[in-house]
Amino acid sequence: MNVVIVFTHPDPHSLNASMLNVCVDELKQLGHAVQVSDLYAMNFNPVVARSDFPLLQPDERLKVAQASKTGYASSNLTDDVQAEIAKLKWADAIIFHFPLWWYSMPAILKGWVDRVFACGFAYGVGEHSDAKWGDRFGGGSLAGKRGMVITTTGGWKEHYSPRGINGPMDDILFPINHNVLFYTGAAVLPQFVVHSADRLQMGDFPVIEDALRTRMRGLFTDPTIAYRQQNTGDYDIPSCELRTALGAPGASGFSLHLKDNSPDKAPRFD
Amino acid sequence: MNVVIVFTHPDPHSLNASMLNVCVDELKQLGHAVQVSDLYAMNFNPVVARSDFPLLQPDERLKVAQASKTGYASSNLTDDVQAEIAKLKWADAIIFHFPLWWYSMPAILKGWVDRVFACGFAYGVGEHSDAKWGDRFGGGSLAGKRGMVITTTGGWKEHYSPRGINGPMDDILFPINHNVLFYTGAAVLPQFVVHSADRLQMGDFPVIEDALRTRMRGLFTDPTIAYRQQNTGDYDIPSCELRTALGAPGASGFSLHLKDNSPDKAPRFD
Repeated sequence: MNVVIVFTHPDPHSLNASMLNVCVDELKQLGHAVQVSDLYAMNFNPVVARSDFPLLQPDERLKVAQASKTGYASSNLTDDVQAEIAKLKWADAIIFHFPLWWYSMPAILKGWVDRVFACGFAYGVGEHSDAKWGDRFGGGSLAGKRGMVITTTGGWKEHYSPRGINGPMDDILFPINHNVLFYTGAAVLPQFVVHSADRLQMGDFPVIEDALRTRMRGLFTDPTIAYRQQNTGDYDIPSCELRTALGAPGASGFSLHLKDNSPDKAPRFD
Repeated sequence: MNVVIVFTHPDPHSLNASMLNVCVDELKQLGHAVQVSDLYAMNFNPVVARSDFPLLQPDERLKVAQASKTGYASSNLTDDVQAEIAKLKWADAIIFHFPLWWYSMPAILKGWVDRVFACGFAYGVGEHSDAKWGDRFGGGSLAGKRGMVITTTGGWKEHYSPRGINGPMDDILFPINHNVLFYTGAAVLPQFVVHSADRLQMGDFPVIEDALRTRMRGLFTDPTIAYRQQNTGDYDIPSCELRTALGAPGASGFSLHLKDNSPDKAPRFD
């Protein structure tokens, strides 16, 4: 199988870099083909700008979704973006690997998403009407592929627990797991998280390495998060609100979008 | 009073740019001083890198928090970062104004946070011990100031409703409102959101303008979101988990971090 790892860390000797090496080694031992987009090493430009859209006329307003759609449909996006889209099409699994900065992706990775997840490829896919609102949330260009987040935090595991002050890690990562990866069609594996990364000692690494190798071995077989699909009857269309019969009475929030009785309803960490 | 607006949009003729003009005009009419950090116009560099830390030796590993702390403490961060920190210290209110891209900030704004929210200024502030875990979540360098998000979405309001497939807007913005603005001490106003931005007509703008002017008039008087403070007894220290007596039984997730019986427990949109 084919695996692309979108990797983000500014220090080539970081914990994250060591973890990346473990992932690549294990995946290759398993016979998979691996491509790494090492965004810092590539000096990837993360800023959406007019120059992303060569077809845009000098006096034309930049409406990003529209320019992206036109550029993608006619293969007139920039070479760096086209190369990343080609990797995603090639991949059977897509891993986002990054340190959690301010409870989200570092800017260079966020901008990779902003630029590479083009309109017509990652959003604006399929029929949009009163009867259907796109191929998304379980359908779309990444359908049939798997997605996964690998991340590290400076903060304590307890701070990300169900009652932790940061909010639960499942909820912190929902905008990525559910709203980026699952949105575009990927089946999403539970995240792999290393907490208190700045406080680790060298002797802690073998445990991390073992756990990572196990997760890489399960990349194509482990159960994925049981998110509800948009277009299989759970949601009213086009409002995309969960049907009133579903979910616990009075419930709201991210956990509504897990299937009822899903094991993923239980708090889950790294 | 002093207001800084950190503004993000690549098109100077965008809806967001028009909204910015309204905000600035109203704030000035009210007698406030306003500084705008227009990140695209400034060509702001959003990528944390070695060059951010002039004190770092060529053979020294880049540990971001440590380098940031050393640089901030000795006023050895780059000029662009120091200038933004100075604006934040000057401000009585800080507004993040951006289009919501992939359920979060555009990369150029995310990187502004990554770079400007330095260690010792925005995090790593105060005593860290078994008895106290920093001045944060209601305390910190931005204590006494107000924070607010102004944003626009391509998606429908219903898609961000309590049962909407994207998740509720309050939860989508929690990593920013609670974990960036409140974390650093600011009291956070409810967000101002314009949905379905690409489908608006020119005739829709006066309603947006009126609502924005009203919100600007209330910037220093409107009730803020009733988040629980970390260091006033609601949380166990240093685990920073909400004390078991607080919150609804069995509850977890972001809404736990609102005070019991807070009006903000109710679903709330734009």
